[in-house]
Amino acid sequence: MAKKVLIVYAHESPASFNAAAKDAAVAALTAQGCTVEVSDLYAMKFKAAATTEDITGGVKDAENFSYAKEIKLASEEGRLAEDIKKEQEKLKEADLVIFQFPMYWSYVPAIMKGWMDRVLGCAYAQEKRYSEGIFKDKKAMLSFTTDCPESVYSDTGINGDINVTLWPLQNGILNYCGFQVFAPQIFWDPATGSPESRSSMLEGWRIRLQNLCGEASVYFAPLDYFDKEKGFLLKPEVKEKYASKESGLTVGIHMGKPLPANSQTKAGV
Amino acid sequence: MAKKVLIVYAHESPASFNAAAKDAAVAALTAQGCTVEVSDLYAMKFKAAATTEDITGGVKDAENFSYAKEIKLASEEGRLAEDIKKEQEKLKEADLVIFQFPMYWSYVPAIMKGWMDRVLGCAYAQEKRYSEGIFKDKKAMLSFTTDCPESVYSDTGINGDINVTLWPLQNGILNYCGFQVFAPQIFWDPATGSPESRSSMLEGWRIRLQNLCGEASVYFAPLDYFDKEKGFLLKPEVKEKYASKESGLTVGIHMGKPLPANSQTKAGV
Repeated sequence: MAKKVLIVYAHESPASFNAAAKDAAVAALTAQGCTVEVSDLYAMKFKAAATTEDITGGVKDAENFSYAKEIKLASEEGRLAEDIKKEQEKLKEADLVIFQFPMYWSYVPAIMKGWMDRVLGCAYAQEKRYSEGIFKDKKAMLSFTTDCPESVYSDTGINGDINVTLWPLQNGILNYCGFQVFAPQIFWDPATGSPESRSSMLEGWRIRLQNLCGEASVYFAPLDYFDKEKGFLLKPEVKEKYASKESGLTVGIHMGKPLPANSQTKAGV
Repeated sequence: MAKKVLIVYAHESPASFNAAAKDAAVAALTAQGCTVEVSDLYAMKFKAAATTEDITGGVKDAENFSYAKEIKLASEEGRLAEDIKKEQEKLKEADLVIFQFPMYWSYVPAIMKGWMDRVLGCAYAQEKRYSEGIFKDKKAMLSFTTDCPESVYSDTGINGDINVTLWPLQNGILNYCGFQVFAPQIFWDPATGSPESRSSMLEGWRIRLQNLCGEASVYFAPLDYFDKEKGFLLKPEVKEKYASKESGLTVGIHMGKPLPANSQTKAGV
């Protein structure tokens, strides 16, 4: 079945490993019959800062200006800047969104955070979020390079567990919007390795891409586990259900227990 | 003792709660004899995207372009864009840096991530990082507003434990650079509350500011806990020392145990 894929890509250099990873995805997915669209953020000189200019026709509440509220409203009323509209059109069409980037300071580069702040504003809503989020029929994933080996991002490594680092991105943004999140594709320190190790990483990615759309997704707690009337805390019956479990429900909703191992880096954990 | 404070501020509206929090900090710190500098990122139209234009005189390795490596080198050689140089000068002078922002998608707004990506590049170094980081004689802290109550960011709340959410920012950026990190000032959902509750939040902030510089900082594992020769993993003697402890060392370096409660939101936990 032909899928539509949007790759949101953030690297300036066409000779970079990130460019190669993006190109590999375009080639592999196109070969499967997918339609692939690339938003090359640096080439587009994508505006990163979320500003009142993103809203046409003036903001509704200038005194208590809330970007989140205004962008949501403007989105519903079609009063968004043209560049945001274009990205939202691509997003609307997409079955799968891949974010391809070099990790900067344990997070996406600012230009990609800008895409998230500005384009995903339409999905920021208390009622329709997480498992009921507006993109619940879509998949999304992070694909990124690090400049350190995997040990550094382990639960006894100096940068700390990568599963913790990924939580605000994968839960706080992708899962919040409703996306089913595929396990991230992490390229550990390609710059330090040999040309052979880089080729081998890319080959691994190509192989994964062959069956990517059939993968299971990362586990997150469903919206109905939480009590809207009581501060969106876990419902007593859910807490009870998981009380005897050795680890927490997810990385963030850990209930004071050890984190479920690899829950942000492997499907269904 | 007079201190120099830099407030990196990211809100467009002078009528916002964030503006009021920034103004309260300027007033309270100035009254104590501190010199306060504000980098008002939106007013400055601060460039958020980290690009090759940030480096003057051309990049050294265009083929394997690494922003982190190039910006570090350019910083050492004085080949940085003027706006970065200006911010680095302010940073050099500062004893304390306060980041004042509205939380966007569980993180700082893109324009502030841009400041971090571009200005802090000089501190990105394997040898001098964490407790040996180049800003180890400085303090830093996050001060931010949310648009949800505290329960939502608890370890049984729908957004998950705020301590997990803050880890990539406080450990991955501030602690990495060497900053001693003060507990964050979190203004829970000021927009939804009454004018009285907003006044009361600001009053709490003013009171805290009176003794801010004397506060203890958030606990992070020191650099010498990790074995450089073995993938920057915890040294065996450190693992042994903490083996009988019920909780992990920090949020990220949790050693498969429950997270230390509130370790990113309270000093010395």
